[in-house]
Amino acid sequence: MHPIPWEERPANCSDPMWRYSGNPVIGRYDTPTSNSIFNSAVVPFEDGFAGVFRCDNKAVQMNIHAGFSKDGLSWNIEPDPIQMEAGNTGMIESAYKYDPRVSFIEDRYWISWCNGYHGPTIGLAYTFDFKRFYQCENAFLPFNRNGVLFPEKINGKYCLLSRPSDNGHTPFGDIFLSYSPDMKYWGEHRCVMKVTPFEQSAWQCTKIGPGSVPIKTEEGWLLFYHGVINTCNGFRYSMGAALLDLRQPEKVLYRSQPYLLAPAESYELRGDVPNVVFPCASLHDQEGRVALYYGAADTVVGIAFCRIPELIEWLKANTL
Amino acid sequence: MHPIPWEERPANCSDPMWRYSGNPVIGRYDTPTSNSIFNSAVVPFEDGFAGVFRCDNKAVQMNIHAGFSKDGLSWNIEPDPIQMEAGNTGMIESAYKYDPRVSFIEDRYWISWCNGYHGPTIGLAYTFDFKRFYQCENAFLPFNRNGVLFPEKINGKYCLLSRPSDNGHTPFGDIFLSYSPDMKYWGEHRCVMKVTPFEQSAWQCTKIGPGSVPIKTEEGWLLFYHGVINTCNGFRYSMGAALLDLRQPEKVLYRSQPYLLAPAESYELRGDVPNVVFPCASLHDQEGRVALYYGAADTVVGIAFCRIPELIEWLKANTL
Amino acid sequence: MHPIPWEERPANCSDPMWRYSGNPVIGRYDTPTSNSIFNSAVVPFEDGFAGVFRCDNKAVQMNIHAGFSKDGLSWNIEPDPIQMEAGNTGMIESAYKYDPRVSFIEDRYWISWCNGYHGPTIGLAYTFDFKRFYQCENAFLPFNRNGVLFPEKINGKYCLLSRPSDNGHTPFGDIFLSYSPDMKYWGEHRCVMKVTPFEQSAWQCTKIGPGSVPIKTEEGWLLFYHGVINTCNGFRYSMGAALLDLRQPEKVLYRSQPYLLAPAESYELRGDVPNVVFPCASLHDQEGRVALYYGAADTVVGIAFCRIPELIEWLKANTL
Amino acid sequence: MHPIPWEERPANCSDPMWRYSGNPVIGRYDTPTSNSIFNSAVVPFEDGFAGVFRCDNKAVQMNIHAGFSKDGLSWNIEPDPIQMEAGNTGMIESAYKYDPRVSFIEDRYWISWCNGYHGPTIGLAYTFDFKRFYQCENAFLPFNRNGVLFPEKINGKYCLLSRPSDNGHTPFGDIFLSYSPDMKYWGEHRCVMKVTPFEQSAWQCTKIGPGSVPIKTEEGWLLFYHGVINTCNGFRYSMGAALLDLRQPEKVLYRSQPYLLAPAESYELRGDVPNVVFPCASLHDQEGRVALYYGAADTVVGIAFCRIPELIEWLKANTL
Amino acid sequence: MHPIPWEERPANCSDPMWRYSGNPVIGRYDTPTSNSIFNSAVVPFEDGFAGVFRCDNKAVQMNIHAGFSKDGLSWNIEPDPIQMEAGNTGMIESAYKYDPRVSFIEDRYWISWCNGYHGPTIGLAYTFDFKRFYQCENAFLPFNRNGVLFPEKINGKYCLLSRPSDNGHTPFGDIFLSYSPDMKYWGEHRCVMKVTPFEQSAWQCTKIGPGSVPIKTEEGWLLFYHGVINTCNGFRYSMGAALLDLRQPEKVLYRSQPYLLAPAESYELRGDVPNVVFPCASLHDQEGRVALYYGAADTVVGIAFCRIPELIEWLKANTL
Amino acid sequence: MHPIPWEERPANCSDPMWRYSGNPVIGRYDTPTSNSIFNSAVVPFEDGFAGVFRCDNKAVQMNIHAGFSKDGLSWNIEPDPIQMEAGNTGMIESAYKYDPRVSFIEDRYWISWCNGYHGPTIGLAYTFDFKRFYQCENAFLPFNRNGVLFPEKINGKYCLLSRPSDNGHTPFGDIFLSYSPDMKYWGEHRCVMKVTPFEQSAWQCTKIGPGSVPIKTEEGWLLFYHGVINTCNGFRYSMGAALLDLRQPEKVLYRSQPYLLAPAESYELRGDVPNVVFPCASLHDQEGRVALYYGAADTVVGIAFCRIPELIEWLKANTL
Repeated sequence: MHPIPWEERPANCSDPMWRYSGNPVIGRYDTPTSNSIFNSAVVPFEDGFAGVFRCDNKAVQMNIHAGFSKDGLSWNIEPDPIQMEAGNTGMIESAYKYDPRVSFIEDRYWISWCNGYHGPTIGLAYTFDFKRFYQCENAFLPFNRNGVLFPEKINGKYCLLSRPSDNGHTPFGDIFLSYSPDMKYWGEHRCVMKVTPFEQSAWQCTKIGPGSVPIKTEEGWLLFYHGVINTCNGFRYSMGAALLDLRQPEKVLYRSQPYLLAPAESYELRGDVPNVVFPCASLHDQEGRVALYYGAADTVVGIAFCRIPELIEWLKANTL
Repeated sequence: MHPIPWEERPANCSDPMWRYSGNPVIGRYDTPTSNSIFNSAVVPFEDGFAGVFRCDNKAVQMNIHAGFSKDGLSWNIEPDPIQMEAGNTGMIESAYKYDPRVSFIEDRYWISWCNGYHGPTIGLAYTFDFKRFYQCENAFLPFNRNGVLFPEKINGKYCLLSRPSDNGHTPFGDIFLSYSPDMKYWGEHRCVMKVTPFEQSAWQCTKIGPGSVPIKTEEGWLLFYHGVINTCNGFRYSMGAALLDLRQPEKVLYRSQPYLLAPAESYELRGDVPNVVFPCASLHDQEGRVALYYGAADTVVGIAFCRIPELIEWLKANTL
Repeated sequence: MHPIPWEERPANCSDPMWRYSGNPVIGRYDTPTSNSIFNSAVVPFEDGFAGVFRCDNKAVQMNIHAGFSKDGLSWNIEPDPIQMEAGNTGMIESAYKYDPRVSFIEDRYWISWCNGYHGPTIGLAYTFDFKRFYQCENAFLPFNRNGVLFPEKINGKYCLLSRPSDNGHTPFGDIFLSYSPDMKYWGEHRCVMKVTPFEQSAWQCTKIGPGSVPIKTEEGWLLFYHGVINTCNGFRYSMGAALLDLRQPEKVLYRSQPYLLAPAESYELRGDVPNVVFPCASLHDQEGRVALYYGAADTVVGIAFCRIPELIEWLKANTL
Repeated sequence: MHPIPWEERPANCSDPMWRYSGNPVIGRYDTPTSNSIFNSAVVPFEDGFAGVFRCDNKAVQMNIHAGFSKDGLSWNIEPDPIQMEAGNTGMIESAYKYDPRVSFIEDRYWISWCNGYHGPTIGLAYTFDFKRFYQCENAFLPFNRNGVLFPEKINGKYCLLSRPSDNGHTPFGDIFLSYSPDMKYWGEHRCVMKVTPFEQSAWQCTKIGPGSVPIKTEEGWLLFYHGVINTCNGFRYSMGAALLDLRQPEKVLYRSQPYLLAPAESYELRGDVPNVVFPCASLHDQEGRVALYYGAADTVVGIAFCRIPELIEWLKANTL
Repeated sequence: MHPIPWEERPANCSDPMWRYSGNPVIGRYDTPTSNSIFNSAVVPFEDGFAGVFRCDNKAVQMNIHAGFSKDGLSWNIEPDPIQMEAGNTGMIESAYKYDPRVSFIEDRYWISWCNGYHGPTIGLAYTFDFKRFYQCENAFLPFNRNGVLFPEKINGKYCLLSRPSDNGHTPFGDIFLSYSPDMKYWGEHRCVMKVTPFEQSAWQCTKIGPGSVPIKTEEGWLLFYHGVINTCNGFRYSMGAALLDLRQPEKVLYRSQPYLLAPAESYELRGDVPNVVFPCASLHDQEGRVALYYGAADTVVGIAFCRIPELIEWLKANTL
Repeated sequence: MHPIPWEERPANCSDPMWRYSGNPVIGRYDTPTSNSIFNSAVVPFEDGFAGVFRCDNKAVQMNIHAGFSKDGLSWNIEPDPIQMEAGNTGMIESAYKYDPRVSFIEDRYWISWCNGYHGPTIGLAYTFDFKRFYQCENAFLPFNRNGVLFPEKINGKYCLLSRPSDNGHTPFGDIFLSYSPDMKYWGEHRCVMKVTPFEQSAWQCTKIGPGSVPIKTEEGWLLFYHGVINTCNGFRYSMGAALLDLRQPEKVLYRSQPYLLAPAESYELRGDVPNVVFPCASLHDQEGRVALYYGAADTVVGIAFCRIPELIEWLKANTL
C-alpha cells in the first residue's frame, strides 16, 4: 500500500493536531461542474486510495462522486455522480445526497450519507470496487444527518452513529448509536454524547455530530467529531475527539474539552459557509499516524495530522 | 362483550361524524392528582373495555395510566401511572410518557406512546392483562411522535405509523410507515401521506399525524388522523380520515379533503391548549358502528360516532 | 327600501357603539359545507340587501359567496362560491378569495377582496345584480390585504385603501391609499395612517387595516378600521374609527385613541381564531344610524350599532 | 378591622387552595374607561381595605388606580390613574405602569410596579393614605418585571424580589432578590429560584416570577408565585408557593412541585390573554386564613382561599 | 462611442462568464464620505458612459450618486447625492434610496431604485443629462425591491420587473412584471419566475430578483438576475440568466439551472455583507460582447464578461 | 512613564481615526491555551502599562487574564486566568468572565466585566498591583453587558455606564448610566443614548454600548462606543464617539452620526465572528494623542489612533 499522506508537526507547534501545508488538497472547481467539493470520505483501496466525494454542482445540487488517488493528496474525481443500483431494497429514492462516509466492513465498502427522502435521513450503500454501488434501505426515518458506521460488527451487530436533526438548519444535536443485525432493520438506539453546557466547553454547546469512521485502538474506539457554537454571526464548526468503549461503544471513556482544530486558516474562514471545519474521514498507518480529511468552509477539502498515542494522552489530559 | 358506546346521528345533522351528547366523557380531574386527561386509548377487554390514559398531573408531568370500564363511558382510571417492567430490553428509560395508543396483535396488547429518551421518540410495551406491562426498545431515534401500530402483521412484519418531528412545538409533520420483523429492529421506512397545499385543504396544511389504530375493512385500512393549520393565534388540530391499501398500507387509496371533526364545542375551544381535536382510539362493532375517542383542548376526552360504510362512501366522494 | 337592522343603545351603556342582542347573526354552519362564515360585506340591494360572504368550507378553502336578505339579519347565502367571468382582463387566476368588501360606485357594485395570486393581493370585480360577476385585474402586486374602495370617485379617480403585508401572519401593517383613472392601473400611493406607539394606544400598535367602505358625512369620510395588538398569546383584533378629509382622503382629521369595540363576548373570544373583531361593512340610513357588520373570532358574523353624529363627536373628543 | 373575605373549602374539594364562588370580584368594565382590571394589589387599610389596581383603558394604555373597599369584595376604584409626586428623586418618568404590588413597611405603604422607562423596569412609590403618592427612583435598570417588596427590613435592609426579563414577551425568567439600605440604591443581587426541568414540573418550566408580598410565618416567608409553560398555543400562567428562609430569604426551604391553581374556570380560560392565573396580593388573618387576589386572563380579578398551616404542610409534602 | 470594457476569456476557463482581472473597478472609499459603493447602474452616455451609484456614507445612510466615465472602468462619482426635482408628482418623499438601475427609453434615461416611503418600494425618476433628475410617483405600494425597466415600451406600455418583499431581510421573493400606460399608474401584474425547489437548483431556492435592464436579442429579452440560498451562516447571492419572450415578457423561454457567477473571489467573500454577487447593469456592443456590472459583498463594484450568442447557447443547454 | 503607542496619520488619509500599521498587536494564540484574545483593557501602570485581557481558551471558555507591557504594543499575558479573592462580599460566583474594562479611581484600579451569574451581568473587582484582585458585588441584576466606569466620582458617586440586554445574542441595546455611593448598591439609573433610526445613522440602529473608559476633556467626557447594524448576514459592529456633559454625564452634548472606524481590514472581516470592531480601552497623553484598543472579529486586538482636539472638532461637525 502507498503510505498515507503525512507531514511532521511544525517546529513551533505543540498542538495535538496540525494542518497539511498544502491545504486545501481538493479545490472547489476540481470537477468540471462543481461549485464546491467538501465533507468527503477516503479509504485505502488497492494499492492506493479511493473515496466518495460530496460535489455540489453549479446549480448547487448535492451529490456524491467516486474518486481515486495514488497518494491521498492528488485525486481524480469522477465528473458524474454515482449511479446507484438496487441493493437490499427496490426503493432507492434520493432527492439529494451529501456528506458521505465510507467504512470497510468484512468484505465490502459501506457508504453512509445524508439522503433526501422526504427530508434528510441516513442513506446506506455498498460497493466492492467503487464502480458499482448498491443502495440499501435508509437506516432511519427522517430527520437525521451524519451517519457513521463502525468498521466492524460489535456483539454481532452493525453499529451506526448518527445525529438526529430537524428539516432545516438544525439548532440542536446529540450523537446517538443504533444497532442492526442485517443492515436493514435498526434498533437499540442509545444516546452516546450530548452537547456541553456553554460554560464548560462552548465550542460544542449547540450541536455535535459524529465525524469519521472510528479507529480501533487498544484503549477504545477513537472518534473524531464536530461541535458547533452559535455565534451572533452564525454557526462555527470545530473538531474534537472522543474515546468510546470497545465493547459498549455507547459508553464514552474520554472526550475533549478543548477543540482539536477550529477555523483559523483563510480557506476555513471564507467560502460558501464561513468558519467550518468538518471531519469526515481519516487514514491511519501502523505507526499510529493519522491523516484526517475535513471539509473547510463548505467549499474545499483539507487534511490535518496527528499521532494516535499522543492524541489519546492528550484526550486523557483534556477530558470533560 | 358489552356493546360499544353509541348514539344515533342527530335529526338535523348530515355530517359523516357526530359528537356524543354526554361529552366530555372523561374530565380533567378524574384522578386525584390529574391536571388533565386526554389523548388516550381504549380497547375491548374481557367483558368490557380497558384503556391507557394520558394523565398530566398537577406538576404537569406527563404519564400514562391504566383504566377500566364496563360501558366505555364511565371509567375507573388508576390513580398511579403504569410501572413498566423490562420487556425485550433492559434499557427502559423514560423521562415522560404521553399520547398512548393500544393495539391488540395476536396474543397481547401493544402500547405505543411518545417516550422521553433524550427527546421525544416512540416507546413500545406490551401487556396481557393491563396490570403488568413490559417495556421494549424504543422503535426509533428521536425525534418522533404519534406511534400507531396496525392490529396485525402485514407481509409477516409489524407495521408502525408515526410522525417524525423535532424537539419542540414542531411546525411540520408527515405520516410515515415502518416495518419490523421482531418489534425490536425497524426499517423499510416509507412516506405515506404529506401535508396538503394551503389552497387545497388548509386544515391539514401544517402537519398531519396518525390517530387511532387502523380498522380493517374490505376496502382497506381505515385510518383516522389529525391535521393542523397554523393560524395567527396558534395551532388548530382537526380530524380527517384515510383509506390505506390492505397489502401495501403505505399506499393511500382515499383521503379526506374536508375535515371530519374540528374544534367547535366549548370543551374543544377552551382548555390548556385551545382548539384541539385529537383522535387516539376507536371501538367498532360488527354493524360497522364506530365510537371514536379523541382528546379535546389537551384537557378532556370526548367521543364521536360514525358508521364505517357511510364514512367510506363519504371518503370516496370527498377525497383529495 | 327595507329599514336597516337597528337596536337602541342598552339602558346601562354609554359606549359609542353597542352590540346587537341577537349576535351572531350568521352562524358558522349557515351553508351546507361551511366551516365558518365571517369577515363579510353587505349593501342595500333592490328592496332589501345583498352581500358577499367569506365562507371557508370544511377543507378550510377560502372563497366568497353571494347572499341576499330582506332585513339584513336573516340571510340566504348561496351554497356555491361566486363563479367569476372575465372583466377588464383575461387573467382571472385565484388560488383563494377572502375578506370581501362591496362598494356601489356610479352604476355597479364593486367587490374587492384578498386574492391569491402567487401570494395575497387585492382582487377586484364588479356586478350589477349579484348573479354575474366580472373579475378585473388585481389592483396590486403581492403582498396586500384589506382592499376597501371609496363609494365614489374623488378628483376623478377611483380610490382604494389597503394594507401592504407579507406572505404570512404579517406582524406589521399600515393603511395606504391608491388612485386609479380606470380600475386597471393604480398609482399615487399615499400613506394614510400608521400604527401607534405602544404607550399611546396599544390596541392598534402592531398593525391596522381598513375595515368597511367609508361613509360620506359633512365632516369627512367616516372609516371603521381594525387594529391589532400582539399579546403573549396571539394577535387581538379590535375596531376603531377615523375621519378622513373629503377631498384629500389620505389626510386624517380625527382618529380614535380608544377602541370602539374589542373582543369581549363569548362568540368573539372563542372560535377558529380567538379574540377577533373585524369590521368589513356597514349600512346606514338618513337618520345617521349605522349597522356595522363584523367578523367575530374568524368564525361568525355579528352586528354592532352606532349613530354617526354621536360617533363623530366621540371621535373628536377621543382623537389621537 | 373588617374580616378578610373568606369561604370555606367546598365539600367535594381536597385541594390546598379553592376559588371564591363569586368570582370574578372585579369586572373588566368596573371603571368608566377600563378595558380590563387585573393583576392588582390590596392591603388592610383603616377599618377596611385599600388597593392599587391595574386598569388598562380602552386605548389599552396601562396605568394604576387607587381603590377602597369595606369588605375586600366590593371595590370603589378611582376613575383616574394615580398622579405621582416626586419622592426621593425628581426623575419620575413613566411611559406606562402595570402589575402593582403593595407592601406596608414600618410607617407607610410602598407600591412597586412595572414602570416604563426606556423599557420595563421596577418602579417604586410610597403613600400614607392612598391619596398622595410619592414616586421614587426606579429600583433597577431595564429590563425587569414583578417587583415584590418584603413587608419588613431583613438584616437592616429593604428586600425586593423581581424577575429580570427582556423588552418583549420574555420567554425565560427566574426569581432574584436584591437589597437596599435606603430604597434608592440596590445591590447584593441573589438568585432565589430558577425554572424547573420540563420533566420535573412543566407548569413552571418556561419562566417564574414573584407574586404577592411574602407572608411571615414561623417556618419562613410564604411566597405565592407564578409559573409559565409555553404550549403550542401560547403561554399558560399558573400559581405555586414557596417557603423562604426567614433570615436569608434567598434560601428556598420548600417549593411546590404541583401548581396550586391553574386556569380552569371560564374567566381564566377566556379574555384578552387566555389561560392566565396571576397572583399579586393576599390578605390573611390571625387564624391563618388567606384570601389571595389574582388576575385572570389579563381581564378580571379573582380570589382564592387557603389556610397557612395546611398550605405549609402541603408544601412540605409536595416540594421539589 | 468609446468601446465597452472588455477582456477575453482566460485560457483555462470554459465558463460562460468570467471576471475582469482588475476587479473591483470601484472601491468602497471612492467618494470622500462613502463607506461602500456597490449595486450600481451604468449606461452609454455621450461619448462615454454615465451611471447612478449606490453610495452608503459612513453613517450608513443609503443614497444614489451620478457618475461619469470615459472607459467604463475609471469613474468619477459625484461626492453629493442626486438632488431630485419634482417630475410627474409633487410627492417625492424618500427616506433612503438604494440599488439603482438605469434604462434609456425613447428620449430619456429612467432611473428606478428602492425608495424609502413608509417601507421600501420602487422609486422612479428620469434625467436627460445626469445633472437634473425628476422624481416621479413611486410605482408601487410598499414592500418592493429591485425595480428594473425594460428599455422600450412593449405593446404600447412601459414594463417594470420587480420583487415584492416585506419590510425586513425578506426570506422569500419571486420576479413579477407590471405594465403602465404613463409611468404613473401601474397594473396588469404578472408572475414571471418563482424560486426553484431546493433539489432542483438550490442557489436560487430562497429568493430571486431582477438584475440588469433586459438586453433585446433576436431570441428574446436577456435578463440577468440574482438568486439566493439561505445557508446556516446567512444569505448567499449568486447570478443567473433567463431569456424572456419578446412580445410577452412575462413568458420565460429559458432559465439557467446552474448559476453564472457565484461568490468566490476575496472581494465577493468578504465585506459588509459577505458572499454577495448582485448584478445591476450591463453594457453590450454590436459584437454581442457584454460587460456586466455587479455589486460584490455589498461593498464594491466588479465587472464580469460574456458573449450573448454563447450565453444563449449555454442557457438553452442548461435550462431548468 | 513610557510614551503611549503612536503613529501619525498616513499621508493620504483624512479620517479622524486611523489604524496602527502593525495590527493586530495581540494575536489569537498569544497565550498557550488561547483560542482568541480580544475585547481587552489597558491602563498606564508603573513605568509602562498593564491590562486585563479577554482570553477564550480552546474549550471556548471565557476568562480574563492580567498582562504587562513596556510599550503598549508588546504584551506578556499571564497564561492563567485571574484568581479573584473576596472584596466587599463573599459571593463571588462567576460562570464566565468576558469583555473587561479597567478604570483607575482614586487609589486603585477597578475592573468591570460581563460576569456570568445566572445570566450575564456586570462584575466588579479592584486591584492595586494587577497581582491580587478583589471581586465585589455584581453591580446589577442580569441581564447586562459592557460595564464601563468613569475614572472619577461625579457629584460624590461612582458612575457606571452599561447596556441592559437579554440572555442571548441581544438584538437591541441602549446605553444607561447608574450611580453608587459605595460600589455596592446602585441606583439613579438614567438613559444616556439610544439607537438611531435606520434612515439617520444605520450603523448604530440595532444596538449601542459603551466602549472605553471616558476621557475627561475641557469640553466634556469623551466616550468611544460601539454600534451595531443587523445585516442579512449578521451583526456588524462599528465604533463611534460621543461627548458627555462633565457634571451630568447622562447628558449627551455631541454624538457621531458617521462611524469612526468600521470593519474593513482583513483581521476585522474574518475570524470567529466576522465584521466586528469593538473598542474597550484607550491610552492618551498630554498632547491629546489617543491610542484606542479594540477587539477585531472577536479574535485579535488592534489599535487605532486619533487626536482629542481634532476628534472633538469632528464630533461637533458630524453630530446627530
